[in-house]
Amino acid sequence: MTALGLFVAFEGGDGAGKSTQADLLARWLSDRGHEVVRTREPGGTPLGRALRELVLHGEDGSVAPRAEALIFAADRAQHVATVVRPALGRGAVVVTDRYLDSSVAYQGAARELGHDEVRGLSLWAVEDLVPDLTVLLDVEPGQGRDRRGTVHDRLEREDDTFHDRVRQGFLALAAREPDRYLVLDAGGPVEELAEQVRRRVRTLLPGPAGAP
Amino acid sequence: MTALGLFVAFEGGDGAGKSTQADLLARWLSDRGHEVVRTREPGGTPLGRALRELVLHGEDGSVAPRAEALIFAADRAQHVATVVRPALGRGAVVVTDRYLDSSVAYQGAARELGHDEVRGLSLWAVEDLVPDLTVLLDVEPGQGRDRRGTVHDRLEREDDTFHDRVRQGFLALAAREPDRYLVLDAGGPVEELAEQVRRRVRTLLPGPAGAP
Repeated sequence: MTALGLFVAFEGGDGAGKSTQADLLARWLSDRGHEVVRTREPGGTPLGRALRELVLHGEDGSVAPRAEALIFAADRAQHVATVVRPALGRGAVVVTDRYLDSSVAYQGAARELGHDEVRGLSLWAVEDLVPDLTVLLDVEPGQGRDRRGTVHDRLEREDDTFHDRVRQGFLALAAREPDRYLVLDAGGPVEELAEQVRRRVRTLLPGPAGAP
Repeated sequence: MTALGLFVAFEGGDGAGKSTQADLLARWLSDRGHEVVRTREPGGTPLGRALRELVLHGEDGSVAPRAEALIFAADRAQHVATVVRPALGRGAVVVTDRYLDSSVAYQGAARELGHDEVRGLSLWAVEDLVPDLTVLLDVEPGQGRDRRGTVHDRLEREDDTFHDRVRQGFLALAAREPDRYLVLDAGGPVEELAEQVRRRVRTLLPGPAGAP
């Protein structure tokens, strides 16, 4: 199936403001007359939410690392097959809060599995569908912590190391395909970031709506 | 982790008698003083049973083919990591009713995904753990149908075609690694089949218990 629509993913660490920026972009596109599907991973489908619930609150106690990776890949497969591809097929713009880079960055950072393995698994799950544009909201661990609040204080130091590995994972992915990424400093003013996203998305929109 | 124990899988179509033969082998091994873990796929762990429940009775209506394959692979990953490998590590004999060949044969037969893709996914899930011996109970579609009962009568003809593809899938896997497989005609008398299985397992048992 040819993807007629436009697929935009927001990626970045916790507290980077992905959800806010995804909402702002979706509203802007919608105001300009585009059909917009604003979605998220994990948990963008009923099956995905049930899977997520199992991983987080299963009776089993612990979930093996590969089982967890496969469950998140299953969530993604279902999301792409039943939400993302149908929307793209009818020409809609899909705006997702997290996509496959998050799996690569987080699971790679947790050092359970290699970046390339996790990426390969995700690509298989989605039959190689990558976003037309991935907006990486790059956040320094210190900033992210401030935005996340003080819930994680007890693990603060370990937290920073972990979040720094996540950050490096995202940046490495962006560096591989600079044309497909827009990397922004998440510390900037919300409206300024939104404007930078819009400027880039405008160049990718099809038809007259894409005119400046 | 080196697998000290012995890992035996029973494979074959529905109605081939896998469960009966797995029970008979487990009892025989147990009587000879071996620690035996008699298990099954899918659903050999609490997580696996919850995953199976989701696939069969999820609210979502339909599960995308790749999502389903990934969920079964997650079931397998959890089963191997939390049941099979720990048992092998302490020297037990693991006897499972179905393992990765079933995914390959069934999902390949359903033509949703390629044999090699499904096999690669499963091997990744289990970190390349293959059984020391796979007993394939080969059943002709007609026989299998008789044993399965008449529930599927309405789809009888399609059923036979499907089950024949499953059968060919199993046989092809066995042909690739003849030394690691014992292929038996599932139509034979139960006790005779059990004796053929024991004869082969005896040659694989470690230590004095393995003496004739």
